[in-house]
Amino acid sequence: MSDRDLVLAANAAFYRAFCDRDPVAMEGVWSRTDEVLCVHPGWRALYGRDEVLASWFAILANPDAPRIDCRDEEVRVHGDLAFVLCIEDLPGGEMSATNVFAREEGAWRLVHHHAGPIAPEDDEPEEPPPGFLN
Amino acid sequence: MSDRDLVLAANAAFYRAFCDRDPVAMEGVWSRTDEVLCVHPGWRALYGRDEVLASWFAILANPDAPRIDCRDEEVRVHGDLAFVLCIEDLPGGEMSATNVFAREEGAWRLVHHHAGPIAPEDDEPEEPPPGFLN
Repeated sequence: MSDRDLVLAANAAFYRAFCDRDPVAMEGVWSRTDEVLCVHPGWRALYGRDEVLASWFAILANPDAPRIDCRDEEVRVHGDLAFVLCIEDLPGGEMSATNVFAREEGAWRLVHHHAGPIAPEDDEPEEPPPGFLN
Repeated sequence: MSDRDLVLAANAAFYRAFCDRDPVAMEGVWSRTDEVLCVHPGWRALYGRDEVLASWFAILANPDAPRIDCRDEEVRVHGDLAFVLCIEDLPGGEMSATNVFAREEGAWRLVHHHAGPIAPEDDEPEEPPPGFLN
C-alpha cells in the first residue's frame, strides 16, 4: 500500500473506533508520544495523551454519542507526517475535520485532531461569518 | 534558527499579513503548489491556491476585518512538514487554529489553515456540545 492509502486507512480506523465505541481501538490509533493535541468542536484545545484520551473515552462512553461518517478525504503526505482534511457527517449536521498523522514504528498514528461545525447551507455565508469580522 | 523557530516565524508572518491587510505578504506565506487547503470558521473547505487566496484577498479587502492576535502556539515539526496549533484572539471572541506548513525551496510555507470558534467560557461545555452528540 502507498503511504497515501496507509494514511487513509489510519483515518478510517479513527472513525471506526468512534462508531464502534471501542476505547481500545481509539487508544490504538493515537500516537504513543505525549505530543498529541485535540480540538473538539467549540472546545478549548486539549494537550497530551492523558487529556486527549480521557476526552475520547468520555465521548465513547456516552450512549447518545452519534454515529459519524467520514467522506471527501483530502490527503497530504510529506515524509513522516501527513494530514487528512475530511467532512464528518453527523445526524445533526456536518463538521470539517483536520487529522494529522505521524509515522511511528512503521505505523501512521494520530497526533492531532481538529474539528468544527460547517454552517448549514441556508446560513452559509458568502463572506466570512460575522464572528470572524466584527 | 531551529526549524521550530522558523515555523513559528512563518506562522507569525501569516498573522502579520492578516493584520497588515497585505495581499502580497499573504500570497507569500502560502505554498506555491496547488495542494493548499483552507477552512475558515463555519465555511466549507476551500481547495487549491486560487480558491484559498481569493478568499484571503476578499477578507483583506474588507475594511471591517478585525485585528487578530495569535498566542499559545504549540509547534510540531516532523521533517519537511510541521504544524502549529494556536489561539486567535479577535475582538468578538477566540478561535482555535491549526496551521500546517511544508518546507519548500528551503522556506516553510502554509499548506493548510483550519480555524473555528471556541465557545465562550460561560457556555463552555464540560461534555461535548449538543451538536456533537445529537
